[in-house]
Amino acid sequence: MLNVQDYLREKCALIDSRLERLLPSAEESPTSVHQAMRYSVFAGGKRLRPILTLAACELVGEMKEDFLDVACALEMIHTYSLIHDDLPCMDDDDFRRGKPSLHKAFTVGIAVLAGDALHALAFEILAAKAPLALVVEVAQAIGSRGMIGGQVLDLESEGKELTPHQVEYIHQHKTAFLIRTAVRAGAICGGAEEKQLAALTLYGERVGLAFQIIDDILDVRGSYEDLGKEVGADQAREKATYPKVFGLEDSREMAEKLIQEAKDSLVPFGPDTHVLSKIADFVVQRMG
Amino acid sequence: MLNVQDYLREKCALIDSRLERLLPSAEESPTSVHQAMRYSVFAGGKRLRPILTLAACELVGEMKEDFLDVACALEMIHTYSLIHDDLPCMDDDDFRRGKPSLHKAFTVGIAVLAGDALHALAFEILAAKAPLALVVEVAQAIGSRGMIGGQVLDLESEGKELTPHQVEYIHQHKTAFLIRTAVRAGAICGGAEEKQLAALTLYGERVGLAFQIIDDILDVRGSYEDLGKEVGADQAREKATYPKVFGLEDSREMAEKLIQEAKDSLVPFGPDTHVLSKIADFVVQRMG
Repeated sequence: MLNVQDYLREKCALIDSRLERLLPSAEESPTSVHQAMRYSVFAGGKRLRPILTLAACELVGEMKEDFLDVACALEMIHTYSLIHDDLPCMDDDDFRRGKPSLHKAFTVGIAVLAGDALHALAFEILAAKAPLALVVEVAQAIGSRGMIGGQVLDLESEGKELTPHQVEYIHQHKTAFLIRTAVRAGAICGGAEEKQLAALTLYGERVGLAFQIIDDILDVRGSYEDLGKEVGADQAREKATYPKVFGLEDSREMAEKLIQEAKDSLVPFGPDTHVLSKIADFVVQRMG
Repeated sequence: MLNVQDYLREKCALIDSRLERLLPSAEESPTSVHQAMRYSVFAGGKRLRPILTLAACELVGEMKEDFLDVACALEMIHTYSLIHDDLPCMDDDDFRRGKPSLHKAFTVGIAVLAGDALHALAFEILAAKAPLALVVEVAQAIGSRGMIGGQVLDLESEGKELTPHQVEYIHQHKTAFLIRTAVRAGAICGGAEEKQLAALTLYGERVGLAFQIIDDILDVRGSYEDLGKEVGADQAREKATYPKVFGLEDSREMAEKLIQEAKDSLVPFGPDTHVLSKIADFVVQRMG
């Protein structure tokens, strides 16, 4: 039986070494923006999105060199979104993964531009390496009808009373869409059949939403060590969170239910599904 | 003989009506970001880049419906770059084309996100409508080795003495690359032969650099009516400009020489080149 920790470590190393090659060197001019891009990309992210891409691809087909680039491009998009999300005009987070946020380590201007550069580099890689339909799908997932739309509503929700429907909408858009797309990217690259793609899409949706709910829970219950940033930041900014709208216990139950549904969607794949299933467990285990 | 003013007006109307259809409606949720995207896209831009795409395409081949979308995507990228460039952490411009900048009309947070959304929407359109190699080329032209690289050096040049080589590097990257890409996009969509593409690439480079030099000159010599924003903003921020490094008269001569070189590169095309040639004249006439 595969040890999921070993699997995650191995894939993480593979992704990191590929990101190292895909990103411009820190010595290349203009050095500030290249150093900034690397600062955030190599800030200790768990690589959940690209690992999901690789795992989904391996589940349905053969893993090829190009698909690793596609996975890395999705990690770049995730990183760009975190950089812009931390800006003073957005969540105003001074820390990220235990280190100063990019705009604190560099400047706000460089942080905006490093995010923009990662965004462009991701599409340069996707256009060169991904199936065309997937490039369109990624752009849709992160646009104003996807991730950015979620961030807009998240920003505008501060200090407001939201309905359960609204908070679910925010979490789906700002977080779950990109995670679902990462899973689908792997499935599409691997040549998934229609039913396989549908099952993996469901898996991605459930894991994606659970991941954000658990993030909310950790913001209330976690420690600085777990989060790498100040605990209670959501409450301080009166953010729309699951614990605020549903309460802590119900939020925990909802996350567990979503993870179970994600695992159930893998049943048709049989015993080969153990990696994705264990990754789902791993996500929920963060709750402690 | 074609009247270039009529040509520009006609293409402008075509581009505007297509942008109208490509952008999410102002009523679609989240309305703030969709209103913001529209506010900036319909702020009275001259549509130079998409017009160059259409004119280059018509010069070498047949104009198709899809290519209009490609042209509009380039205008969205240009708009996103202006939005981020105007931010307080960048050029801190309160006005753009005679109207409050997006971050003044909305908020800084919405301005960052609206720029990001236009960036993503542009790639959604390009991936669906442009030849694959062109999507890669656009991404390269606007990344850290292209437009963003120029903006980084521009930002970092404030208050510094730059060499002529450095200021040329900044202008080529922050402005000329996207204009060259707009011309090349049209040529590639139109199915240009190698020699045609080389000639049009040269045209785009020269017009692109001349355009930014003239912008610098207008910042010194123009009026609020010409610029739609405060005159002398570059000087106030101690920006690296051509007039500062080369003097006003030499800058003017360099712009005129570049425009002549742009027009010369069109000679092999014969009399069909009149539109692109007149657009080059039009760019230089802004100097007055």
